[in-house]
Amino acid sequence: MLDVLTTPLQRLLRERKPGHSLPAAFYLSPEVFEADMEHIFGKHWIYVGVEPDVPEPGDVAVFDIGKASIAVVRDEGGEVRAYHNVCRHRGARLVEDEKTTVGNLVCRYHSWTYDLTGALIHADHMGPGFDRACHGLKPVHIRSLEGLLFVCLADEPPADFDDMARRLGPYLAPHNVRGTKVAFQSDIVEPGNWKLTMENNRECYHCGVNHPELTVPLFAYGFGFAPEEMDEHDRAEAERYGRLLTSRHADWEAAGLPSREIDELDTMVTGFRTERLPLDGEGESHTLDTRAACRKLLGDFTSAKLGGLSVWTQPNSWHHFLGDHIITFSVLPLDADRSLLRTKWLVRKDAVEGVDYDLANLTGVWLATNDQDSHLVGLCHKGAQSPGYEPGPYSPNTEMLVDKFVNWYAGRMAAHVGR
Amino acid sequence: MLDVLTTPLQRLLRERKPGHSLPAAFYLSPEVFEADMEHIFGKHWIYVGVEPDVPEPGDVAVFDIGKASIAVVRDEGGEVRAYHNVCRHRGARLVEDEKTTVGNLVCRYHSWTYDLTGALIHADHMGPGFDRACHGLKPVHIRSLEGLLFVCLADEPPADFDDMARRLGPYLAPHNVRGTKVAFQSDIVEPGNWKLTMENNRECYHCGVNHPELTVPLFAYGFGFAPEEMDEHDRAEAERYGRLLTSRHADWEAAGLPSREIDELDTMVTGFRTERLPLDGEGESHTLDTRAACRKLLGDFTSAKLGGLSVWTQPNSWHHFLGDHIITFSVLPLDADRSLLRTKWLVRKDAVEGVDYDLANLTGVWLATNDQDSHLVGLCHKGAQSPGYEPGPYSPNTEMLVDKFVNWYAGRMAAHVGR
Amino acid sequence: MLDVLTTPLQRLLRERKPGHSLPAAFYLSPEVFEADMEHIFGKHWIYVGVEPDVPEPGDVAVFDIGKASIAVVRDEGGEVRAYHNVCRHRGARLVEDEKTTVGNLVCRYHSWTYDLTGALIHADHMGPGFDRACHGLKPVHIRSLEGLLFVCLADEPPADFDDMARRLGPYLAPHNVRGTKVAFQSDIVEPGNWKLTMENNRECYHCGVNHPELTVPLFAYGFGFAPEEMDEHDRAEAERYGRLLTSRHADWEAAGLPSREIDELDTMVTGFRTERLPLDGEGESHTLDTRAACRKLLGDFTSAKLGGLSVWTQPNSWHHFLGDHIITFSVLPLDADRSLLRTKWLVRKDAVEGVDYDLANLTGVWLATNDQDSHLVGLCHKGAQSPGYEPGPYSPNTEMLVDKFVNWYAGRMAAHVGR
Repeated sequence: MLDVLTTPLQRLLRERKPGHSLPAAFYLSPEVFEADMEHIFGKHWIYVGVEPDVPEPGDVAVFDIGKASIAVVRDEGGEVRAYHNVCRHRGARLVEDEKTTVGNLVCRYHSWTYDLTGALIHADHMGPGFDRACHGLKPVHIRSLEGLLFVCLADEPPADFDDMARRLGPYLAPHNVRGTKVAFQSDIVEPGNWKLTMENNRECYHCGVNHPELTVPLFAYGFGFAPEEMDEHDRAEAERYGRLLTSRHADWEAAGLPSREIDELDTMVTGFRTERLPLDGEGESHTLDTRAACRKLLGDFTSAKLGGLSVWTQPNSWHHFLGDHIITFSVLPLDADRSLLRTKWLVRKDAVEGVDYDLANLTGVWLATNDQDSHLVGLCHKGAQSPGYEPGPYSPNTEMLVDKFVNWYAGRMAAHVGR
Repeated sequence: MLDVLTTPLQRLLRERKPGHSLPAAFYLSPEVFEADMEHIFGKHWIYVGVEPDVPEPGDVAVFDIGKASIAVVRDEGGEVRAYHNVCRHRGARLVEDEKTTVGNLVCRYHSWTYDLTGALIHADHMGPGFDRACHGLKPVHIRSLEGLLFVCLADEPPADFDDMARRLGPYLAPHNVRGTKVAFQSDIVEPGNWKLTMENNRECYHCGVNHPELTVPLFAYGFGFAPEEMDEHDRAEAERYGRLLTSRHADWEAAGLPSREIDELDTMVTGFRTERLPLDGEGESHTLDTRAACRKLLGDFTSAKLGGLSVWTQPNSWHHFLGDHIITFSVLPLDADRSLLRTKWLVRKDAVEGVDYDLANLTGVWLATNDQDSHLVGLCHKGAQSPGYEPGPYSPNTEMLVDKFVNWYAGRMAAHVGR
Repeated sequence: MLDVLTTPLQRLLRERKPGHSLPAAFYLSPEVFEADMEHIFGKHWIYVGVEPDVPEPGDVAVFDIGKASIAVVRDEGGEVRAYHNVCRHRGARLVEDEKTTVGNLVCRYHSWTYDLTGALIHADHMGPGFDRACHGLKPVHIRSLEGLLFVCLADEPPADFDDMARRLGPYLAPHNVRGTKVAFQSDIVEPGNWKLTMENNRECYHCGVNHPELTVPLFAYGFGFAPEEMDEHDRAEAERYGRLLTSRHADWEAAGLPSREIDELDTMVTGFRTERLPLDGEGESHTLDTRAACRKLLGDFTSAKLGGLSVWTQPNSWHHFLGDHIITFSVLPLDADRSLLRTKWLVRKDAVEGVDYDLANLTGVWLATNDQDSHLVGLCHKGAQSPGYEPGPYSPNTEMLVDKFVNWYAGRMAAHVGR
């Protein structure tokens, strides 16, 4: 693949205009898509799910990254492991269900049997010359960041995961992901390139006219504005928001909740960003009444008035950690023009649906927001196909994180294919 | 694209056998399809619709030519303009509906706003360094031929449009397209290459056994025959038709209706042909009773016994102008093996459905004929895929216009890629 | 095509590991698929159907091999002929239905008419310079092996068909295919490469855990096992089966039924294998009660206790000939990841459904088995897409015929493209 690709992709990288959306080929070309899967999704830490997806020994969850199917397994010792989900005999897919619980991993084709550490422990008819030890499942690198699961398909994963984990860990720990369960999962296929899905996520310039539900809890000012365009009223509001942010950060940090911005979106191989932001209204949660959706709070929290801790990781995730629940998003490219957006809502493990939380209330804001975003992504994908498409300028006031996503992407691609 | 393509396409052009259907690659190859879209549909005048699609200021109609989406707008001054339907900011498709009416063109993603002349008049948060004047909508060339709308995606469109307009205009003018409305539009996807759809349209050798409805008003003799194969009865009928044609042409021309054949199908860049032909039966219209389908006649006509003015343009349209209504067809390739056939039935603007015309009666003949043709196109496309396919000979007596379509196509392609 | 392909395909052939499943590209690559269609399905004898598909003069059956559509016709003299199913005029597909009965073959586009020997006998409007004799249907090589129909798209088909026919004929003749009718045909699309469908067919290692219906009549021991892994009970069973096989072969051969194995699976261009195997239970048929499904027996048989004569041909068929019915399978690739499996159940021509046989009973075992196999093929195809896929070892005790299929395939491909 690469021989053919290197030259044009290098030229595309050289010729892209900083501060602007990408040349159309980055969104449309099957060749660029192959390169994305090989170099971006094949060589970086990809967020796929959470430890509560496999809470008990023997639990298996299957995640697909492009054509790679990965079985994430909790072994008898409680450790989370990951394997290529393919039998070493005739290559059949091993685990068919998205989630299951097993004693061993048994291929249904010819009953080759692997234990939870991936060792081949049974294979009939193979004769005396056959060495089981050479035919165990192939492991995949997996790391848990306070319960968030990241896998890497490369032989040598980026080494700076530890640095991210050290700095992000204290922000996440109080929300205790491991003490939650998945209350709901939504999978939608967005009709556009995965980078358009990511760009859409990285700004809230579009929120005002497109997200009537999300802008109930979210302050628009939290995502940037052009000061020179504001009238007196808007300026007063923006200043009020600025004071609120400073004072809340001070309060939260004093209470042991790390809250101030860390931004390494385009400065690390494993790019990430976090910040705890105040919410509007009651200030508790991403709900239409801005109050907690779950009566049982996360971790050791005694109040839900904690704003929302937002976390972004490159290339494919974002997360909102609230006092009562967590919403976590992964983007998994299907082909150049379709992307899976997977959203999970996590609540405390012992919370009971219908008693402690109402599912419609819990999921309402983001189910609506995802649908709205999916439509916008589709419009951009169609637009990029037009011969009239030309990369347009990002707003320096509201699209800084989009710019950083694109910079990270272009930099990482160039690091692998040259420029 | 072209680097890879030039050589084989040139060889295909060199090796095609004149007077025969094209080598299979012209119908099947995705590479030839790309070349068709780039050189034929990207560099010639393409018929897309009619002025009555955008009757009033603010009316917008969207037409897709391949991946290009084009917004045709009637501006405040009544002028018809065309733009690439893509926002200059993040590239979102601007107008989503096929038809709409607007004050300004507003992108729903971030509310960038363009007036009807394409100027960017509003864009939030872009900061002081941003120049709106550099971010207006990109115009597309558009021309109206007595109300028939042709667009050209090239920077420099073929110059001979004016010549065609000068010569065709007097034929069309009496039917007053601008004084009509679209009574019905049918979009069908034909399961074959667009050139097979065009070839199918360019002959009536197949009408006798395939079009029981169309051959009620249409004289088979009007589309050619092999004189040496005729028996006495057929020869007498053909001679009768010949005399009828001559006498009607004389009558119509005397009455101010240009009617005699002009054929520039393969002799101009903007190839076209026209001729007014007598109809069978009552001789009024393309209906099953051969009478006018609409009580209100077009233009200043006082009788519908005007035969049918047929107009063909390369590469993608044909039209039948009757005394009471107009049927107009455009072919828009979707991919190498699927083509959109769009048919519009136009009646006088003030005609009332159910009072002045019955929609089923108006559309019956051509809805049936289109379906029959679509099936035939599918058979040819399947046949071309066979290793047993070999270009076959066109009839010198009934497939002359097919031959001219293919000559025009091959000549225009060669003019752009060499031969 | 070939220019681009030769090098990588040659390298793939050189680098494959004998005794192992193929490198993933053989199952997935569209380029390899094109080569498969050109060299394997385009240059070998392909099993497509049976003489009872066209029992009477004028009967036509259409078979598709990739993009090639082939009309098999029984002519007035009773001879079975095959033609490319495409009109010599404008290339329309000639016969649309899968089966029909005609006087002549008439193209519905412009009524060009061919007689059953393929001669063009009618074409209107073509003028005096047109020579009908040059525009007959293009013939395709076809051979009947005791009623099994094989076609070859190459100009010069493999010459060893006669050798196969001479040796296989006596095995098949007693079952009298020509005296049967098609009681039922099932077409299913398996979600995998055609070679995975063939590999799946060539072993019964997977039968025990996947085919509860098929293993009622079929002895597992008939398809191999690893003697060194057996316990005392299994060894006794295996020995019992061995004695049964030897004694039945002797009985059947004495009664005039050739039964002993011939295996030329990877030693001839037209590779094949046959053997008559005892059945379990009542030993009569592939049914759930192991008794004959049809009261009228085939040929001159007076008892159904004949075991099952199995026949395999490369690249795309297998067959089971029982005393009361025949089940015959052809695999026709649709694209790299979809394959048509066509199964026909043949019973004696004068047997009456509902009287002599119950259709559900006749077809039950193999309809279930096909569905199970289709699922397994899908698992292997998905597995081959994984970056964790690595060709795995075939069992030397139960997957010998898989190995021979793969050897035949690789050898034939190398013979055509080099290695």
